[in-house]
Order: sequence, then structure tokens, then C-alpha cells
Amino acid sequence: NAQLNPTTSDLSPPPTDHRTLAQTHNLFVTSPYSPGSPLILPNGAYVFQKLQAFLRAQYPQFGFREVITPIIYKKSLWEKSGHWENYAEDMFSVQGRGATSQIPEADGGEDGEFGLKPMNCPGHCLLFREEIRSYRDLPVRLADFSALHRNEISGALTGLTRVRRFHQDDAHIFCRPDQILAEIEQTLKFVGMVYNTFGLGPYKLLLSTRPKDSFIGTVEEWDRAEEQLTKALNNTRSEWAINECDGAFYGPKIDIILKDSNGKEHQTATIQLDFQLPQRFDLQYQASPEELETGSQTSMDAGLDPALRRPVIVHRAIYGSIERFMALLIEHYAGKYPFWLSPRPAIILSLSSDPNVLEHVSRIQAVLSGLKPQDAPAASLPSSPKPLPLSTIHLPVDVDTSDRPLGKKIAEARVKKYNHIIVVGGKEVERGTMNMQIINQPNEEATVEMMQKILERDLTEKEHS
Amino acid sequence: NAQLNPTTSDLSPPPTDHRTLAQTHNLFVTSPYSPGSPLILPNGAYVFQKLQAFLRAQYPQFGFREVITPIIYKKSLWEKSGHWENYAEDMFSVQGRGATSQIPEADGGEDGEFGLKPMNCPGHCLLFREEIRSYRDLPVRLADFSALHRNEISGALTGLTRVRRFHQDDAHIFCRPDQILAEIEQTLKFVGMVYNTFGLGPYKLLLSTRPKDSFIGTVEEWDRAEEQLTKALNNTRSEWAINECDGAFYGPKIDIILKDSNGKEHQTATIQLDFQLPQRFDLQYQASPEELETGSQTSMDAGLDPALRRPVIVHRAIYGSIERFMALLIEHYAGKYPFWLSPRPAIILSLSSDPNVLEHVSRIQAVLSGLKPQDAPAASLPSSPKPLPLSTIHLPVDVDTSDRPLGKKIAEARVKKYNHIIVVGGKEVERGTMNMQIINQPNEEATVEMMQKILERDLTEKEHS
Ligand SMILES: [Zn+2]
Ligand SMILES: [Zn+2]
Repeated sequence: NAQLNPTTSDLSPPPTDHRTLAQTHNLFVTSPYSPGSPLILPNGAYVFQKLQAFLRAQYPQFGFREVITPIIYKKSLWEKSGHWENYAEDMFSVQGRGATSQIPEADGGEDGEFGLKPMNCPGHCLLFREEIRSYRDLPVRLADFSALHRNEISGALTGLTRVRRFHQDDAHIFCRPDQILAEIEQTLKFVGMVYNTFGLGPYKLLLSTRPKDSFIGTVEEWDRAEEQLTKALNNTRSEWAINECDGAFYGPKIDIILKDSNGKEHQTATIQLDFQLPQRFDLQYQASPEELETGSQTSMDAGLDPALRRPVIVHRAIYGSIERFMALLIEHYAGKYPFWLSPRPAIILSLSSDPNVLEHVSRIQAVLSGLKPQDAPAASLPSSPKPLPLSTIHLPVDVDTSDRPLGKKIAEARVKKYNHIIVVGGKEVERGTMNMQIINQPNEEATVEMMQKILERDLTEKEHS
Repeated sequence: NAQLNPTTSDLSPPPTDHRTLAQTHNLFVTSPYSPGSPLILPNGAYVFQKLQAFLRAQYPQFGFREVITPIIYKKSLWEKSGHWENYAEDMFSVQGRGATSQIPEADGGEDGEFGLKPMNCPGHCLLFREEIRSYRDLPVRLADFSALHRNEISGALTGLTRVRRFHQDDAHIFCRPDQILAEIEQTLKFVGMVYNTFGLGPYKLLLSTRPKDSFIGTVEEWDRAEEQLTKALNNTRSEWAINECDGAFYGPKIDIILKDSNGKEHQTATIQLDFQLPQRFDLQYQASPEELETGSQTSMDAGLDPALRRPVIVHRAIYGSIERFMALLIEHYAGKYPFWLSPRPAIILSLSSDPNVLEHVSRIQAVLSGLKPQDAPAASLPSSPKPLPLSTIHLPVDVDTSDRPLGKKIAEARVKKYNHIIVVGGKEVERGTMNMQIINQPNEEATVEMMQKILERDLTEKEHS
């Protein structure tokens, strides 16, 4: 493994591009029929879903509840939200085809034109308005994994990083002005917890403050909000900086800038305050006794009944775009995924084409995949299938029963970076055991424990080294 | 509970409409901004996701792997598949807005027009073509929960049953002609297993055969396929019938017709053979030695290299539209969901506003929700959050700490059909226990067991009766 151009040991080699790794690990493909919308293969979908499931498992402790909202809304919604005008270049429009597009809408809408959603916020505002909210109901925290579409120029499209169709781990927090600090603090903790789980970082937090010229609300309201964000940032242990006057006209924000192993910076998570959408959608809640007593009112509340207030919206995403986050992780792990996230947790290689060996391979695959208890008879398809409980842990365990030499099969399995390589030959059939070569991995202990449980005996040191 | 118009005990009353039940149980709402695309509320999203998770848990045992495919494809794909012409009325077209829509596509496509997908098949055909397939690789089974859009006339839109946006538990099986029987048999078993789990049925299986006039392929090929479907149907224990000449021009199919408690029939699952798409997308695999030996070739293989064959596609969905299936279940259960599916598994009612009682309510909520171990101290928000493992079972346990009379709170909880109603007062705080009223439910045993585990003691008969 001589290197022609050795570099200093301080500089790690630049990570392999995620598109190259995607080929080796069968993660996704692109098609000229869907520029900017990659087709995610089973291995990629497995990683995608584990990322989604991981976040979902955290939502209850942070008080988020998931909703499922439309992909297309009438043009009139996007006019109300301001996107139709301000986001025109980035949006796709949708229309019925054929005769149905000629029929006037029966349900009161005059427009037959729809917008393909670039973000979830307007839909979530509709949901907030569905009930009369009391100050006690706040914060309302709605999460949404919907597909989003933004019309990027085709020349700019790249793998999973510059796409037209993507999914965010999106959420909107509708809260009282006095709840901003607590919500931002919790969100920053959530970010820290997630990035720490994946071993990503260090990251920098960037606060963008009130723009110089055009902004909504008053200077005092911005100062108060920025003060809360500053306090929340000070309470984290992360490095943070100010981007003076770089906030959007509708509110200040915090961006999370991640440095990869190569020093390259990626903007991932974002936490954005919004004083505008609550006004555009006329969102309101019944003020608390304290709010009534102090007569607290902001410029957002102008024109409202004195007993009502407008909530503030916090737009937030922890991964940001799941596709982009996946691209980052693909390069970060370079195929060596932690066991729980790995689309290739294990492969079983046959040492010969002996029918007994092949049957043993199938049996071990079924057991390790979570499809069969250890004492079940071998059979390729269940004759009278029983529903498996939702709690079943399925592992996509592969097999290689080709009649190529074992060395070749092992070499290929290594290139594919299986977490565990299991070789089954005649001896294993006799003994009913497995000969394993375990590639060093996080969570290895848990796996060995699992395999020991399946085999109902301790594995010797030799077997897993 | 006197009835003004008593009916015979044989006839159960017609089920309450799912739209009415959706209001009582906060399942979904509709909006004039998104006709035909309901907004699914947290409770509805919970049921939706459990349905999805249940099917996902079964996929490995039936050999399906999930993919994530685009929502919009270029017009040219839909022209290739035939949908652009034959499905025109039902499809939405998509275009970029503003200046970006004027820029010619850099990636070789001449069309700036897209179609919003009404079905997943063309995308799955692209995936099948990504690799050179051998006869050994078949069947390839791809599953997809993507959002689909079909342009129904707005006057026809109803709740979750007649919609424009929906999700199928869609899958496509790409198999050899000699694998049709086994695949259909497995699929029918899958259907039976799922419908049995929900206590749905009886259902009728309906085989639609070769149309009289226009069909692709030869009469012999249809006969052979229909013979396999007939054999598979005979092997089930369900009632089945023939719908002579009612198949599509591209292949025979089996529909599953479900009878609800009111005798009304619903078409839900479908299994459809397709001899056409494999030709349109030029799908091929390397023939097996047997296929080469017998020189087996069908009209689908015309023009192919003699060593290649075309696969058959089986389109199949077990639930069908998840939205429509949910509507069926909403009426079927009328709010009394089985515990594992219930968006309201338990509610805790406070007997007083004593701070100790309220704290105890919070603690029990956190423990039953799966957020805290039983010995954790009470605190509303985690100060230093730890990631919860993916295997954590979260229950959306509600509380009612309003200062209304207990009778009112219990009555409301009953209307909302919580599986378990737990009352906490001063005595419970002292003893550290719960006073429970458990509504009779399937899976009750599991719940009581769980609660006993949490309380670390046996519940008396009185406590859960
Ligand atoms: Zn937003
Ligand atoms: Zn299909």
C-alpha cells in the first residue's frame, strides 16, 4: 500500500464523494427522467428510514407530534403565504390535464392552479387554525417528513446534495413570545444530542440578527427576541458567532454550520423565528392572565381583540434535508456504518455447494434476519405466514452462495464493508455453528451478544477476531 | 338507552360515517386550499404510521424491499409508459415557474414538463433496468409507500375515500413466467394474514380474465397465466368468482372485495399481472438453462436476443389506498381501536388541583408514555436529553388536569374512547399507585401487564374492571 504522494499525517485524505460511495453500496441512482429526484435503492431507503425512525423515537420527549399534510395546495394558499410572489422561481406549478382541468372547481375555489409545496409552514398554519387555542395549549409542536420540491436549475443538480425533491425533518413550534427562550434551548439540546449520536462535529452556531433596512415589527421586539436567542446560545457549550444584520426580514435565526473531517463547512440544521406568517394566517390564541394584566402586546397583535395574541412560529430542522444529511453521513462513514444504521450488517458465505451447507446458510440467514426463531425448520417461504410483531428487529442479512473461491467472496464482502462476514462450511453444518470474521465496528458487542443468543453458546475469542 | 325504532337483532346499525368519527377522534381535517388532500392530524398520523409499520414488519418474510422514488417525472417517462396518453384525465402536470422554466434542460431532456405520479410502476421499471438481471435474481420485489396523485373531479371528493392524494402499500414483483403461481399464492396468503389481523372480512376474490377483443399477447399465454391464477385461488380457503372478460388489455387480475358489517362491498387489495410494461420499458433477464433448453419464448420476448427473456410484472397492494383502508377501519372500530393501533391508548385524570397530584399525573404520563423509567424524578422537560433507542415503545398518553368535576372528565374520556382511563387523586399520590378504569379492549392483557410492571405490583381485579 505504498503511496506515491505521501501527505502529512495531520491531513486526512479528502472523503470519497458520496456519489461514488453510493455506487459501491447501492444507495441511490439518478435518472434523466427525474433530474434532481434520485431514485433511492433498498440499501439507501434502509438508511433513510433508520434516520427517520431515530428522530421519530426522540420526538415524544421533545413534545413533537407528527402530521401528514398535502403535497399540492391551491395557488391561493401560496398567495396568502407570500410564496407565490416571493418564491416564484423556486416553485413548481401543478395543473389538471384534459377535460377535468376545464371544469370549474365546485368547492368555492376559482383557481384550478396548484403549487407543489417547497415547504410545510403554510399547511401547518392551517392546522394551527383548526382549533381555538388557549395560552395553555402552547407550545404546539408539529413535525412533518413530507416530500418537498424546489426548482433548482438542472445544471446545478448533484447527487443527494443539490436536488429538486427532498425531505426535511421539518417542524414548526407555535409558541407565546415568553416561551421563545425555553423552545430555543430545547431545540439546541436536541441538535447537540443528534449530532453527537452520529459523531458529527464540531459545529458552529451562527446567529443572524435584524437586517438594517427592511424588517417587520419594532426594534424593541427584535431586541427582545435576539436577547432570548443569545441567552440560549450562551447556555450551550458550542462555539457561536453573530452574523450581524443577516436575519430574514421576518425574524432572526440560528444556523448550524458543520465542519467535516476535511474542514469543509456544511449548513445543516436551522432554527428560524417568524413574526410574519402568524399575521398572514391570522393565527391567534387566548391571552394568559399575565398577558392580560401586563397588557403585553406586540406589533403582531395589531387589530386583534385585546383578549387575543398572536403566537410566534419557530421553523426548525435538525438534520435539515435528510438527503443532504445522508450525503454527509455517507462520506463520514465511507461505508463503515454503525451496526444499527448499516444496510449491510452481515453476509453469510458458503464454503461449498453441498446442499446441506446451502440449507444451513438459509437457516442462519432467516434466524439472523429476525424472520425465524432458532429452532424453526428451514424452508424458503412460510407456508402459513403469521404476522410478525412491530417490535421485531429485522436485519437485511445477505448471502453469497456462488461457487467462486472463498477468498474472492471474502474480498468482495470486505469491499462492500459488511459489518460481519460469516463463513459456513461442512464443519459448521456438523456442529450447527458459524465461523465468523467480524470487521471492527461500533456496537460490535451488541452484535456478538445477539449472535451468542442465537447460537445459545459463547463465541470463542478466535471466532470473533 | 331506549330505542325509538328497535330493529331486529340481526341487523347491526349502519356504521357512523368515517368523517363524523374523524371529528370525534381528531383524525383528519379537510381544507378548501387542498381539495382531495386531507390534512392528517397527529391522531390520524399515528394510526397511518402504525398501519405502515405493521406492513413493513411483514415485508422481510415475503421478500419485499422498500425503495423511495420520485414524485414527479418528465413527461417523456409517462409517454413511454403510456400514461400520458391513456391516463390523461387523471394526471396532474407540473411545470417550473418564473425564469427557470425558460431555461432549456441541460441534461438532455427537451421537455420542461413533468407529470405528478399517479402510480409507482414506471419508476420501479427504471430501477429494474439499473442492473443486468439473471434468472437467479428473480423475483425482484420492490415496495413503495410514495404519495400518489390522481385528478378526481372536485365534486366527487369525500373524506379519505375519494381523494386526489393518497398512499398505497404498493409493490411490484418482477418474476419469470414460471414463478407466477408461487408469487400469487404468497400474495394471497399475505392478504389473508393482514385482513385477519384487523378482523376484516369476509372477503370475496374476483378473477378478471382475458377481454374479448383487444388484448396483448396470445390466447395460449393468457390461458397459461389464468390457469396459474385459478390454481392459486383454489388453494385459498376464500370464496372466489370469475369476472369473465373483465381483465385489462395487458393482463388478468384478482381483486379483493371486502364486505363491511353493513353488507356494503369495498374493493381494497388488488393483484394485477402485466405483460405490457416489461415491453414498453424493454425489461429483460438472462434466461435460465431450462428456459434456454426448452426454447420457451412468449410474444413478449419478440425481438429479444435468444438468451434473454422478459419478466412479468405483478402489481399488488394489500391495503390498497392506505387512506381508504383507514376509512374502513375507522368505521369498523368506531373509535374502539385495538391497543396497538389506538391513538388514544390511555388518559390520566386528576382528581384535584393539588400540586402533588399534578406532579404525580406528569410522572405517570412520562412513565406510561415510555419516556422515563419508573424511578426517574419528575420534571417537565429533560435537562440533558439522551437519545432513546429505536426500540422504545412510545404511547401517546394524554392527561386531563382541568378543574372540572371528575364525572365530566370520565364522561368525556369515554366519548373519546380511550382504551384506559386512569384516575389519580390524593390517595394515589400517597400510595404511589394508580386507580384505573379499563375499557374492555383487545390486547388488554398486555396493557395490564405493562402497567403492573410499571407499578411493580399486581393490580387487583377491582382496579381493572
Ligand atoms: Zn417552515
Ligand atoms: Zn403498478
